[in-house]
Amino acid sequence: MYDLIIIGAGPAGITASVYAARKNMNFLVISKDIGGQAAWSGDIENYTGYQFITGPELAQKFEEHMRKYNTALKENEAVITVEKIGSMIKVTTEKAEYEARSAIIASGKRSRELRVPGEKEFKNRGLTYCATCDGPLFVGKDVAIIGGGNSALDAALQMISIGKNIYIINNTDNLGGDAVMRQKVEAGAKAKVFNNSQVTAILGDKMVNGIRLQKLQPQMTQVNSADEQLLAVQGVFVEIGLEPNSEFARGVEKNELGEIKVTSYNETNVEGIFAAGDVTDVPEKQIIIAAGEGSKALLSAFRYLAKH
Amino acid sequence: MYDLIIIGAGPAGITASVYAARKNMNFLVISKDIGGQAAWSGDIENYTGYQFITGPELAQKFEEHMRKYNTALKENEAVITVEKIGSMIKVTTEKAEYEARSAIIASGKRSRELRVPGEKEFKNRGLTYCATCDGPLFVGKDVAIIGGGNSALDAALQMISIGKNIYIINNTDNLGGDAVMRQKVEAGAKAKVFNNSQVTAILGDKMVNGIRLQKLQPQMTQVNSADEQLLAVQGVFVEIGLEPNSEFARGVEKNELGEIKVTSYNETNVEGIFAAGDVTDVPEKQIIIAAGEGSKALLSAFRYLAKH
Repeated sequence: MYDLIIIGAGPAGITASVYAARKNMNFLVISKDIGGQAAWSGDIENYTGYQFITGPELAQKFEEHMRKYNTALKENEAVITVEKIGSMIKVTTEKAEYEARSAIIASGKRSRELRVPGEKEFKNRGLTYCATCDGPLFVGKDVAIIGGGNSALDAALQMISIGKNIYIINNTDNLGGDAVMRQKVEAGAKAKVFNNSQVTAILGDKMVNGIRLQKLQPQMTQVNSADEQLLAVQGVFVEIGLEPNSEFARGVEKNELGEIKVTSYNETNVEGIFAAGDVTDVPEKQIIIAAGEGSKALLSAFRYLAKH
Repeated sequence: MYDLIIIGAGPAGITASVYAARKNMNFLVISKDIGGQAAWSGDIENYTGYQFITGPELAQKFEEHMRKYNTALKENEAVITVEKIGSMIKVTTEKAEYEARSAIIASGKRSRELRVPGEKEFKNRGLTYCATCDGPLFVGKDVAIIGGGNSALDAALQMISIGKNIYIINNTDNLGGDAVMRQKVEAGAKAKVFNNSQVTAILGDKMVNGIRLQKLQPQMTQVNSADEQLLAVQGVFVEIGLEPNSEFARGVEKNELGEIKVTSYNETNVEGIFAAGDVTDVPEKQIIIAAGEGSKALLSAFRYLAKH
């Protein structure tokens, strides 16, 4: 029986835990993993105070910061439901049930899937959602990166120094993301960009050996098979965005993307349940923003507990 | 003529500048000082990723992060007015006029004054608003810290290792602030707390030599002179809160505290003028929150410029 349960240990959850520890609160952190999307990032140059740090390094610093306070932590434990029953918040995981007077949901986002034939079959057999984690497996290989925003550019930059030919498959007219990152990718002669292109299948035998591409032409009403193309690759990195880990939150209001709706005080529609970071409808998914929101959510939960 | 002018170079303004630089924007930063309230802080243990860092050290890291991009910066320049004229934002400082298509106001807060006799007279003659800046001047002296929240506790902790007797003058029943900080202050035998006490005058000759205190008794309707007390001190640290630096923002909506009202996208009521950090009505004044808000404001300004 806790005052507070924090669900998630990414930038938002860890920041909330640091603030909670410094307020001597009786709290528990439950998380599947530690570091969240930060741990999956490549080079980070926009976390204020660190001019340059890798994602895994920053995640490590976050983890050490949390552990400094001997915080009660249930690791590798997936949450199945969070709901308010009477005046209590009940958190059910795959392993146990916990109760608390308040909760902060900071469970972040996960990679969106392509949903094309071959994706499930070749997952972890050449197809991956994390360049930082799996990139080093593709030394000297040809790889395709699916996506055109910052996370795709980040994956491309990581693969330029590891792989052979790097193909970026982007379904819009031009790459998005930060100009600085685009320029770095374009300066790398190894990278070839396919704009207005869509992946229709992942091909392979035991492992990935190619992808099928289709050229997108907005005016066309019929697909011309001449616009289809096969690319031989041994690796596929899917970087087409993120989905919120919010399914377990019962009775909590979400927007059309599944993000938990919060006030500027990080309150949800359920009294005593707060939310912070990428899982919420706060604009922009950035480490520094998630960390700030984690601090704000904890201070709101602290005030809520003082009142009730 | 700029795309964007950022006013202020504290955690919010600097974070906005880092993001702006990484988007290759044509922008200018104007600020009276660098580091904002962070530079005035003592020990910081809740900026996620730094388990322990002093305020001046963190401010230095922020400044280096900003300067890495050779950002155009007008330092030591106070803004007099910001207003929208036609479709342009005009920023007038004590030295010049600047124009931009958008602006981010991140001018932070300043220390609130006591407004008692002797305060103006003895300012910088024993009376100060910044323990971090001026604390070292009071080695071995008796000092009074006025206030009872985290900034007063922070000042007390700094002075415990420098001064002789430390008096904390708090006008409520108990000290506020974080439990961890309160315990550290209470563990320091040097600190004596005067609760329910109010400073009515700063006394001195050429320099501060004392303060006059009055005991607050909610039930009493008349002040009993027996409840007045003189305390001999050579230093007075005023730590009773902050006021927003928002007076220069014309036509921009503010709340009753003078804080600029913003949406979750950091928009003000004036199209093209955004605001971030302590100067806004976003709850809680924390370095990590201000930094996150600076990132969010910049990304909103960037989108606004792309559309207009």
